[in-house]
Amino acid sequence: MSSSMNIHLLGHIHRIGRKARSLNTLFTIDKSEFMGIGTLGVRSWVCAWIIRGSAGFYAGQPPLNRVAFQRHSSEVMNRHLNDPETRFLVFKDGKPLMKKDESGSILFLTKNQLGDDELGKEFGVAPSDASSETKKYYETSRLPHTQPPLVFLGIDDRQSPTTNSSSKVDHLNPQGPAYFALDAQGDTLNWDELLERENGEWGDARSSGNNMSPWDAGVYAQGRALVDWNARNKFCPACGSPTYSLWAGWKRNCLSSVQPIEGKEPCFSTKGLHNFAYPRTDPVIIMGILDSTGEKMLLGRQKSWPKGMYSCLAGFIEPGETFEDATRREVLEEAGIEVGPVRYSSSQPWPFPSNLMVGTFGRAKDGQTIRLDLDNELEDAQWFPKSLLQSIISSPSGSTFSKKDYKQLDDKAQSHHDQESSAALAPSEKKPDELVAKEGELGLSRVPPSTAIAGQLIRQWARGELDLVSKL
Amino acid sequence: MSSSMNIHLLGHIHRIGRKARSLNTLFTIDKSEFMGIGTLGVRSWVCAWIIRGSAGFYAGQPPLNRVAFQRHSSEVMNRHLNDPETRFLVFKDGKPLMKKDESGSILFLTKNQLGDDELGKEFGVAPSDASSETKKYYETSRLPHTQPPLVFLGIDDRQSPTTNSSSKVDHLNPQGPAYFALDAQGDTLNWDELLERENGEWGDARSSGNNMSPWDAGVYAQGRALVDWNARNKFCPACGSPTYSLWAGWKRNCLSSVQPIEGKEPCFSTKGLHNFAYPRTDPVIIMGILDSTGEKMLLGRQKSWPKGMYSCLAGFIEPGETFEDATRREVLEEAGIEVGPVRYSSSQPWPFPSNLMVGTFGRAKDGQTIRLDLDNELEDAQWFPKSLLQSIISSPSGSTFSKKDYKQLDDKAQSHHDQESSAALAPSEKKPDELVAKEGELGLSRVPPSTAIAGQLIRQWARGELDLVSKL
Repeated sequence: MSSSMNIHLLGHIHRIGRKARSLNTLFTIDKSEFMGIGTLGVRSWVCAWIIRGSAGFYAGQPPLNRVAFQRHSSEVMNRHLNDPETRFLVFKDGKPLMKKDESGSILFLTKNQLGDDELGKEFGVAPSDASSETKKYYETSRLPHTQPPLVFLGIDDRQSPTTNSSSKVDHLNPQGPAYFALDAQGDTLNWDELLERENGEWGDARSSGNNMSPWDAGVYAQGRALVDWNARNKFCPACGSPTYSLWAGWKRNCLSSVQPIEGKEPCFSTKGLHNFAYPRTDPVIIMGILDSTGEKMLLGRQKSWPKGMYSCLAGFIEPGETFEDATRREVLEEAGIEVGPVRYSSSQPWPFPSNLMVGTFGRAKDGQTIRLDLDNELEDAQWFPKSLLQSIISSPSGSTFSKKDYKQLDDKAQSHHDQESSAALAPSEKKPDELVAKEGELGLSRVPPSTAIAGQLIRQWARGELDLVSKL
Repeated sequence: MSSSMNIHLLGHIHRIGRKARSLNTLFTIDKSEFMGIGTLGVRSWVCAWIIRGSAGFYAGQPPLNRVAFQRHSSEVMNRHLNDPETRFLVFKDGKPLMKKDESGSILFLTKNQLGDDELGKEFGVAPSDASSETKKYYETSRLPHTQPPLVFLGIDDRQSPTTNSSSKVDHLNPQGPAYFALDAQGDTLNWDELLERENGEWGDARSSGNNMSPWDAGVYAQGRALVDWNARNKFCPACGSPTYSLWAGWKRNCLSSVQPIEGKEPCFSTKGLHNFAYPRTDPVIIMGILDSTGEKMLLGRQKSWPKGMYSCLAGFIEPGETFEDATRREVLEEAGIEVGPVRYSSSQPWPFPSNLMVGTFGRAKDGQTIRLDLDNELEDAQWFPKSLLQSIISSPSGSTFSKKDYKQLDDKAQSHHDQESSAALAPSEKKPDELVAKEGELGLSRVPPSTAIAGQLIRQWARGELDLVSKL
């Protein structure tokens, strides 16, 4: 036993070394996850290569430096706002402003290009005679509350990274251009003129991500989630009064905090414990379920999905659940399969509108029959052998989806359950005008691309990367 | 290298075998996480004991069978509602109904004990002539919308578990008493009488969990999060109209879906992609940060915390972040320390009001100085050696907090940042009336108990349980 385990681990470490280099050219790899082989004594760390694929798509690698503590200061935020180097990412109804002639390139604007009318007022401060308690209600506020949402995203400090080993740049004031996201409201004609002048166009809400660089995709995801949250949460869930933005777009309060609202009682959300004020992030579990041999994976499809596409099962995590519990519940509900051990793999932000995908692997118990009649969410679910998945992921058309496919998925992604499943599909690397599944409606011919976490889970398993020594 | 790794792993597996048995008596262990040692050939699974501590506190072990697909059926829900075996967990302003003379025992009521007035109407259905589209707006609805929130929690199927190996019980209809959570509204006098009659009392919102069994704590956490969400989200964030409950308490829609609202435009939330309708779960990252030797852990304290208490750093995950990114950002913001590799450990629901704690371990980069002046959230942060933590967790007073301590923490847990930190502390196993820290205000004398995920992270590390072969 001991010697075979030994061979097992070494075999993996050697293989991983090769794989890491070749994968590096295919995927965005989180550099900080790479470690050398440490001393392997009894009391020391087990360190080996940890491979992370592009599950970080939409997370940005490296991410913007969010300098979250700067959001509270109107002074600092207004300095960024007025800096000619600052860049603005603009959305209209969730659609990003893109360069017209460069597929996948965000058209970031400067303040000069934008114009004061489109941007709105500077961030406000409290009246000078306000108490320190009252001042909190005005921190980097956007009043009057009817102005278009404006959100500080962070600093692009890639040119002079703030590291502790360098004393040149202070963590308090990272250097580099600031980024904001802005919701395009107001006169449509003005925006039409601006688009004409700057050679921009409103991209597609979902498939614009298609050809974005991973870095741009990270800025896009953060901006989209925050602008969307601000634009949609215009009223207080506690009392129905309007809300206003503060903390440079990262908080919304009931307007009754700063002015009396006619015909309304004092709102309970102005004091006490609640979570109305902060952006929400909805965690979704998505899982690669293996049979007890580890040689088959459970994949399913919904009726509304593009022809031939299967993906990992998925579902929203409910209050009172761990990731592991949620994984077991969802697989039972969707496919009637009981799952034993569950292991976390990776997470991926998914800004449609504000999901956080949590990828797990789980092992099914033996001797079970798939059944779809519990929650009737899936059209089909099957155990697929590793060899079949290997051939699909190595085929050029195995993760290729047409514009029509995306539209089909977008049109359906209007309900809660469809949100879960749409997250199974991410922007494709290739876009043929049309692609016909080679097999029948229920035959597997496509799986999500590697930019989606489901595509990552399937590839990690099919490529034999699951048994890594992934310890600190 | 190869032989020392071999010894290393075997040493752990042997030690783990012993530890698992002894830990079993101390902690609630998720049985399904236990696996034997598998065949360790090159192509097979690496299987070893995986130890999970009681991070599952508030998750319920085993959890209720939520039979989520039953929520859509008014018929099934009303059958449960009228079943004399069904149990109701009642909350008043977030405080659970407890047995008066049994510390830590929830007083579950039957429908008979409750009375029709307190319970409200049965779940409703759509008008018989409604279209199939309209019918969706009435699925297990609670109308008129002014009735007290009522939430279906699930079935306690512990007596006849629904397993695939048994054909006796169908997964569609698990057998056992159903559980609902109810918000106590209406005439206070009636509730006073009921409490008198049934010998109950309203427990403390937070510290009631103190002496609950892990199973009760799971029901409590789910019920509290859902009742709280229903009670607080009375107005539509899109248009400010009232909302109503459907899906037996798991969904809320704008009332304009089912009746015209005077003076309001049609609400955009009645169609299109949004997430207003579903309970929110706010993921919080909480991390055990180790130095490069693995022998020291970074802990911090806020000024408002009980004397001598230090805990893991923590913070809300923001839109556009992975767990790993959020871990690195928070540690930098709070302590000025950069973190390299990050690894997920476990998750824990935390129903105050609706957090999901995500525990990670991370390794700090070398040669850094702690600084607190970035976000100024912590009063102190220090590297503590393993030996000190070992002595504290083995001391009887090392995780003991008085009622006064809890109150201090509760009083402060009214803001977003304090919510993060309050989650560091969970119900204590012991309750001396008063406990005086043995060291000065900034000396470490206490850490969170093992019912809190921070207590778990600290103990896992201090007890040398981090290097397990925790693979599928």
